[in-house]
Amino acid sequence: MKATVHIMLKKGVLDPQGKAIGHALENLGFEDVGDVRQGKVIEIEVGASTTKAQIEDMCDKLLANPVIEDYRVTLEEIA
Amino acid sequence: MKATVHIMLKKGVLDPQGKAIGHALENLGFEDVGDVRQGKVIEIEVGASTTKAQIEDMCDKLLANPVIEDYRVTLEEIA
Repeated sequence: MKATVHIMLKKGVLDPQGKAIGHALENLGFEDVGDVRQGKVIEIEVGASTTKAQIEDMCDKLLANPVIEDYRVTLEEIA
Repeated sequence: MKATVHIMLKKGVLDPQGKAIGHALENLGFEDVGDVRQGKVIEIEVGASTTKAQIEDMCDKLLANPVIEDYRVTLEEIA
């Protein structure tokens, strides 16, 4: 199975990397660009018996910083 | 509207960061962990008239490195 973890900074936490991307887009001539936020996505191949709770455990222990980051886990069969 | 851009290294491009995460997960006692790949996700608030082609233009010019990275754009109304 494939687990996909999306990790974004929590709302209200300053995201300087996102801000930099936003400014760069404006400098390149893209208008109408509002707030930009950058996060991480991690794709993990796991065994068929792996549960979502185990992936969330991975997030809490290693992948995300729960103090400043939110994460979202999706688990799907590999086609 | 909210544009979400997923950027992953192309298949076949070595992903040392993903490998490091995989090893760290094994060292933490998680079994059954196969290939791990890390990518980026960028969320951009854009005006209502922005098209998917414009977001793809942003990817080609700034957000992604088309030589080694694949990107996927989704565009949705903000709820």
